[in-house]
Amino acid sequence: MVGIHGHADAARLAVLALHALQHRGQEGAGVATWDGAAMRCHRGRGLVGEVFGPTDLAPLAGAVAIGHVRYSTAGGDALRNIQPLVVRSRAGQVAIAHNGNLVNAQRLRQDLEARGSIFNSSADTEVVLHLLAASAQETFVNRLVEALYQVEGAYSMVLLAEGRLVAVRDPWGFRPLVLGRLGEAWVVASESCALDLLGARLIREVEAGEMIIIDAQGLQSLQPLPRRPRRACVFEQIYFARPDSVVFGRPVYGWRHELGRRLAEEHPVAADVVIPVPDSGLPGALGYAEQSRLPFQLGLLRSHYVGRTFIEPSQQIRDLGVKLKLSPVREVLAGRRVVVVDDSLVRGTTARKIVRMLRDQGAAEVHLRITAPPTTGGCFYGVDTPDRDALLAARMSPAQIGAWLEADSLGYLSLEGLRAVQGEDRGRYCEACFSGDYPVRPGAEGPAQQLPLFVPGA
Amino acid sequence: MVGIHGHADAARLAVLALHALQHRGQEGAGVATWDGAAMRCHRGRGLVGEVFGPTDLAPLAGAVAIGHVRYSTAGGDALRNIQPLVVRSRAGQVAIAHNGNLVNAQRLRQDLEARGSIFNSSADTEVVLHLLAASAQETFVNRLVEALYQVEGAYSMVLLAEGRLVAVRDPWGFRPLVLGRLGEAWVVASESCALDLLGARLIREVEAGEMIIIDAQGLQSLQPLPRRPRRACVFEQIYFARPDSVVFGRPVYGWRHELGRRLAEEHPVAADVVIPVPDSGLPGALGYAEQSRLPFQLGLLRSHYVGRTFIEPSQQIRDLGVKLKLSPVREVLAGRRVVVVDDSLVRGTTARKIVRMLRDQGAAEVHLRITAPPTTGGCFYGVDTPDRDALLAARMSPAQIGAWLEADSLGYLSLEGLRAVQGEDRGRYCEACFSGDYPVRPGAEGPAQQLPLFVPGA
Amino acid sequence: MVGIHGHADAARLAVLALHALQHRGQEGAGVATWDGAAMRCHRGRGLVGEVFGPTDLAPLAGAVAIGHVRYSTAGGDALRNIQPLVVRSRAGQVAIAHNGNLVNAQRLRQDLEARGSIFNSSADTEVVLHLLAASAQETFVNRLVEALYQVEGAYSMVLLAEGRLVAVRDPWGFRPLVLGRLGEAWVVASESCALDLLGARLIREVEAGEMIIIDAQGLQSLQPLPRRPRRACVFEQIYFARPDSVVFGRPVYGWRHELGRRLAEEHPVAADVVIPVPDSGLPGALGYAEQSRLPFQLGLLRSHYVGRTFIEPSQQIRDLGVKLKLSPVREVLAGRRVVVVDDSLVRGTTARKIVRMLRDQGAAEVHLRITAPPTTGGCFYGVDTPDRDALLAARMSPAQIGAWLEADSLGYLSLEGLRAVQGEDRGRYCEACFSGDYPVRPGAEGPAQQLPLFVPGA
Amino acid sequence: MVGIHGHADAARLAVLALHALQHRGQEGAGVATWDGAAMRCHRGRGLVGEVFGPTDLAPLAGAVAIGHVRYSTAGGDALRNIQPLVVRSRAGQVAIAHNGNLVNAQRLRQDLEARGSIFNSSADTEVVLHLLAASAQETFVNRLVEALYQVEGAYSMVLLAEGRLVAVRDPWGFRPLVLGRLGEAWVVASESCALDLLGARLIREVEAGEMIIIDAQGLQSLQPLPRRPRRACVFEQIYFARPDSVVFGRPVYGWRHELGRRLAEEHPVAADVVIPVPDSGLPGALGYAEQSRLPFQLGLLRSHYVGRTFIEPSQQIRDLGVKLKLSPVREVLAGRRVVVVDDSLVRGTTARKIVRMLRDQGAAEVHLRITAPPTTGGCFYGVDTPDRDALLAARMSPAQIGAWLEADSLGYLSLEGLRAVQGEDRGRYCEACFSGDYPVRPGAEGPAQQLPLFVPGA
Repeated sequence: MVGIHGHADAARLAVLALHALQHRGQEGAGVATWDGAAMRCHRGRGLVGEVFGPTDLAPLAGAVAIGHVRYSTAGGDALRNIQPLVVRSRAGQVAIAHNGNLVNAQRLRQDLEARGSIFNSSADTEVVLHLLAASAQETFVNRLVEALYQVEGAYSMVLLAEGRLVAVRDPWGFRPLVLGRLGEAWVVASESCALDLLGARLIREVEAGEMIIIDAQGLQSLQPLPRRPRRACVFEQIYFARPDSVVFGRPVYGWRHELGRRLAEEHPVAADVVIPVPDSGLPGALGYAEQSRLPFQLGLLRSHYVGRTFIEPSQQIRDLGVKLKLSPVREVLAGRRVVVVDDSLVRGTTARKIVRMLRDQGAAEVHLRITAPPTTGGCFYGVDTPDRDALLAARMSPAQIGAWLEADSLGYLSLEGLRAVQGEDRGRYCEACFSGDYPVRPGAEGPAQQLPLFVPGA
Repeated sequence: MVGIHGHADAARLAVLALHALQHRGQEGAGVATWDGAAMRCHRGRGLVGEVFGPTDLAPLAGAVAIGHVRYSTAGGDALRNIQPLVVRSRAGQVAIAHNGNLVNAQRLRQDLEARGSIFNSSADTEVVLHLLAASAQETFVNRLVEALYQVEGAYSMVLLAEGRLVAVRDPWGFRPLVLGRLGEAWVVASESCALDLLGARLIREVEAGEMIIIDAQGLQSLQPLPRRPRRACVFEQIYFARPDSVVFGRPVYGWRHELGRRLAEEHPVAADVVIPVPDSGLPGALGYAEQSRLPFQLGLLRSHYVGRTFIEPSQQIRDLGVKLKLSPVREVLAGRRVVVVDDSLVRGTTARKIVRMLRDQGAAEVHLRITAPPTTGGCFYGVDTPDRDALLAARMSPAQIGAWLEADSLGYLSLEGLRAVQGEDRGRYCEACFSGDYPVRPGAEGPAQQLPLFVPGA
Repeated sequence: MVGIHGHADAARLAVLALHALQHRGQEGAGVATWDGAAMRCHRGRGLVGEVFGPTDLAPLAGAVAIGHVRYSTAGGDALRNIQPLVVRSRAGQVAIAHNGNLVNAQRLRQDLEARGSIFNSSADTEVVLHLLAASAQETFVNRLVEALYQVEGAYSMVLLAEGRLVAVRDPWGFRPLVLGRLGEAWVVASESCALDLLGARLIREVEAGEMIIIDAQGLQSLQPLPRRPRRACVFEQIYFARPDSVVFGRPVYGWRHELGRRLAEEHPVAADVVIPVPDSGLPGALGYAEQSRLPFQLGLLRSHYVGRTFIEPSQQIRDLGVKLKLSPVREVLAGRRVVVVDDSLVRGTTARKIVRMLRDQGAAEVHLRITAPPTTGGCFYGVDTPDRDALLAARMSPAQIGAWLEADSLGYLSLEGLRAVQGEDRGRYCEACFSGDYPVRPGAEGPAQQLPLFVPGA
Repeated sequence: MVGIHGHADAARLAVLALHALQHRGQEGAGVATWDGAAMRCHRGRGLVGEVFGPTDLAPLAGAVAIGHVRYSTAGGDALRNIQPLVVRSRAGQVAIAHNGNLVNAQRLRQDLEARGSIFNSSADTEVVLHLLAASAQETFVNRLVEALYQVEGAYSMVLLAEGRLVAVRDPWGFRPLVLGRLGEAWVVASESCALDLLGARLIREVEAGEMIIIDAQGLQSLQPLPRRPRRACVFEQIYFARPDSVVFGRPVYGWRHELGRRLAEEHPVAADVVIPVPDSGLPGALGYAEQSRLPFQLGLLRSHYVGRTFIEPSQQIRDLGVKLKLSPVREVLAGRRVVVVDDSLVRGTTARKIVRMLRDQGAAEVHLRITAPPTTGGCFYGVDTPDRDALLAARMSPAQIGAWLEADSLGYLSLEGLRAVQGEDRGRYCEACFSGDYPVRPGAEGPAQQLPLFVPGA
């Protein structure tokens, strides 16, 4: 998710920023701009490089742009669910891009439909547009505040309202959002790596509950929403964000490296070599190797080419899907006691194939180490964890899981270990998928029906 | 390049093997089979996963198949240059796939055209087909031997001749070719990683000058071509082959790791961290770090997504192309003296951008180390090195190159160092691109006009 | 526009019917079905045969279907303007297909947006869906009646409401709509030619102001809308409908033939041959020839192939666009005094090129005859006549037009002549584009705010 | 088939000419040009308008071009069978386009393959290219004459030989070929309608056995091939050529009209109306109506839209394929005794459906009249008549056919009637498909092995 304000090449910058954010969603991509009179938008299914062909940029005129990459499969893959959503309504022409998940979207949608609204997508995001259209407030910002008073859950959003760029982050601060500067232009983005690609300077995080409004008059910051305890998603740090990003104020690479060191302390093992599951386990494996003073090698190689094939494997080829993506290096593995490090273990199907693959190449022992606690619960805030039934750690103890994976041992980082790495931010993360302690449940009401005094003239 | 004999699912296995060999060519791919009565073939431009869609396999019936991925841009990217080439001629129906480059193709083609032959492609490979068609020999194998007596240069080839699979490697042994077994079926492939993917067992290399014929009667090995000194391409070991392959009898990963160690001995430097250019420099960087006892970190991340974009950078975004592919990690770099290791330095344009990127992230010093000698000459045997004019090392000394790259120092592995790593195979590699000592020059004649006694009944 | 109820193959029949109705719209096509639980829909830009590929039908399960071919360029060619429009709202799941044009859509849309509705298309048709969603009535039929009380203008519509098929025609009866039977199934369609293709039997016209509801209980006919004088579009008879259709109760071919006879009486000329502009002028030219006792020949041939070319003409090729579509036959024309008959003359650009083409082939005289009065005004009811500025007859007298066309003479059918052919239906047609007498003007209100008593249980 | 010489826009003219010749082949199209140094070519499957997109023309530089539309399914629909065929050989760079069929291609191909030639297509045309490459003659023209001395059968050909345009017609003159002029440029084309579209002037036919050579020195005409009796294909006049063309020196439209008159004399019937099968039967039906003094009407309408559908008919819809293309007009048919005129009756499957369709619309009697004699034999000269087994008239008498078609009567034009219309050209047409009198049989040798004296300097 990205927003650009005040750059003659806004759409181009937005598309490039989406390239840097591609890891946050591969199902679809889109960019909307305001050309001074009308909204323009190009969206499509697939990767950014597939959606934006050589001629798609020309129509996206204007100095303000927002962009989005679509991640979740929730809502189906119909083109109309790909963001930015763009509508014309009583609130004017508006485009919106949303990262996160609203926990009361279903009920709000029912209410709105009962009042005669017609929804065009199955995205929870569209609720915000209908609340905007239904609001009796007179200014766009007040309409938006009124709308946000009714929604609950996780949202980092950018909106484009006829030349005005608005960025807002929910009061819990679940999903990341940063503010940067590129010359005279403003950039907001989900992660700092998008700023780096553009050569923009990171200014600061958008605060939890903060609304930033950028227009011809400059940047204005509001805190119109009720305060909540900060609950930044720890899974962003562990798994989701790019290692070269600074997320929630901390560099990701070093955090993951530190998780690996901590894991080595908690789960040491007599072994010959430490290898990562590439690329996800790389920083953690380096930390583990460093702390345990074991040699680090690449025992698994990741294919440079997308492992996509339309050719279904014949039965003889066991674990073909994994093998197209990861290749074991016999020379590193044969006869060795191997520690394999990864950043998560959710369904376990890939891990099981990896263990088998390493043994097939002669590994004497295979010890699996995970730089996160067991994932015991789903996420209501925008991470697409599988149903609880499919979560290994929801049904089995670590020992049982290790046995099922046919590993010689399995070690997870403890929740305490994770919190130790959080340092002074300890207690300010959402760890619900590990702890079961959910900050807000599906079906919860929005923050209040009683609205605050609004910013005059906003 | 791959050949399968004696498997009901031959085409499917061939396509999967091409996935494993994708790094050897990304321009096009194709598979031909013999269905018992006619040759069937599917070819296309692009990656294997693009060329072979869900319905393309069904027509490729038969238990014998050959496949190819196209690499060089020589001959243009026309569909008709994509292999396997398939023809019907006096020699019967024949499909051919060729890895390497013939040094006397031009003159042979002129001779053939003067005799009335009409060429359909611009590939040197087609010469072999016309020589086959023009031969007065009576058996296919004798025709093929006669044809090969006339060509000179680098070729590993697989041919499919109405159900018979023939694999042949030139007498110098420039390009790799291995033989494997999958149950009762035979597999030949450019690299052992293709066998690994299929779950096939590596039997041995196809020898330089050897011709292997596989048909219903089983496997037959001939050495019909005159002996030459072995000249296996050292660039396969250094750069081209996949690290998990065993090439020319040696595992590639360990070889490259060893080059890194050797390089550290030759070009040590006082530094804080060793980082690879991912993924090409990974094994070498690990070796360098190990030998130099410096910490190994990932200071550059490689994007999981193809860095393809149709969006041309605006001028403000310096070095966008590299940045879309590689992201620097400030945390690893800032304030550090950094050793960057890669496996080659040809044009230097990317390396220059990397040096700049590292400095932009705060690196105190940048020392570039290359696990190969300076590339001073082109290749006539199938590696697509640029013209001599574009080769940095052909025009400048290492010191000049380091200055141009704006690196604090630059160290290449010496030719002696490279040879030391070759061990007992020392002197049996083609190192012409480093040494200028070319085993055979363009325009050379084929091995002899005098043909040997042929295998009766072949 | 077509609706099918009670046939296991409803979608297939709908697509075939759209083939027969292809002349009514070439921009896009779509079909929606009710599968018993959800609405299914497939739409696309282009001709029916382009939109519906071999695999597009399978998902369109269900025994009830509606279909549409899109004609007007009003609203742009965005996919979302292609019908049937399908929504889920308070009124349930509804699909709608509309032929005609609402004259008060703009104001209704403004009202709805002021109440918070968000429109997804630029089609006037979407207004009906929002009125349905906004209605406080409890049954679908009563909601629909309430909606139709608010709209004014031309509409023949079919709606699919969760298994129920509703067909309705506006009180003026501008656009055609017929009811037919195919075994036990019901079919409604814009023209009888669609029934003929399916082998269905024509029962009768849907009456002006009539609403037909077909569900599991059978067919029910209501007349819930206020009566208006019948104003069937005479342009359907003259130009738009297919000659093999029965429209507004009269066969089209014979009507057009009769217009030709009448024209010969009004504008006789001493000539050698009568030729049509194929295929539009064929029936009229036959009537003209018969009445004037002149020989009928094909002096212009129409290409069987779509005259589409991406190759822009070089300047030497005069009138290429017309020549790709129509070829003059010198043998018929050379030295002859030629009467050319067509069914309309709107912009005149093609006619001018035809006159020139005939002269180039040696025609001694060229007399143009039009089987319709001069088109002096645009249409507000769904025919895409050009702006008044582009209408020849709005700016010039017939004599001036003839001179501009470089014809030796030009004769239009008189309005009186047209009315004579109408016979007992005289005065019951909308002839506004010829007479300027518009039955209802843009911006008019809907029929009443006072609603009738509704059908209980509807 | 078309050739252009001496026009800056040669490729563009060629493509446009192919549009005019689209009726001669719908499977594929292509254009080749000589840009002064190399041959350029664009070919593809489908209609001309599909093959040539907006950007395909730019690369086809040069003032000389040849083009082709592919008709026969012989040789399969592979792209490589689409013409012009382009090769580089001892005879230089050559492109060829061929209309007709060689009767000894099979044997020549075997001979050439025995000498080592490799064929790339399955087209008989490629034989000529190999004969050119194999010739020992020194000039291109002499090579071509030598090649043509070896082939036998039907050919009108255009060749492009490095800037020189050669047009040649076989000594029998089976297939048409005309020469025209457009300003300073020369145009050769299969039919005069292509000249008309370009605005070129018809000069004359290329004579049977004539070779025309156009280069920078101007136009040269040779008669290098042995004389044969003229045997122009009468089916071109009856069916294949476009009605607005002048073919074999006679206008086609009038010829067909005359056939209709003659048919009315031979097979009169008491009837109420004469209708054509559109568009093929139109001129003949007009002639029949005129001679018989019966009214002419359009009882069947032809769809403007290609009747292509991917939607397979359900069983209830009888004769859907025909109905999508042809619509009966009840008003014209009901209660009438109808004469239906078409230009040929080959398999009879469509005719049978038409008869049924007319009766379904109430026709009292249906009398079928064909403006050609019964087709009793196939064609070896380039018309794609079905196998003899599929020819109605090869198995049944006219009376039996009429009964099978369920027509009230069936009348064919007699062979004598056809000859009467030929007038002074009587006896100079190939009528083999009607008479069984084949001028030259498959397998015949070429004209002579003894070559003539060649044109010096040609």
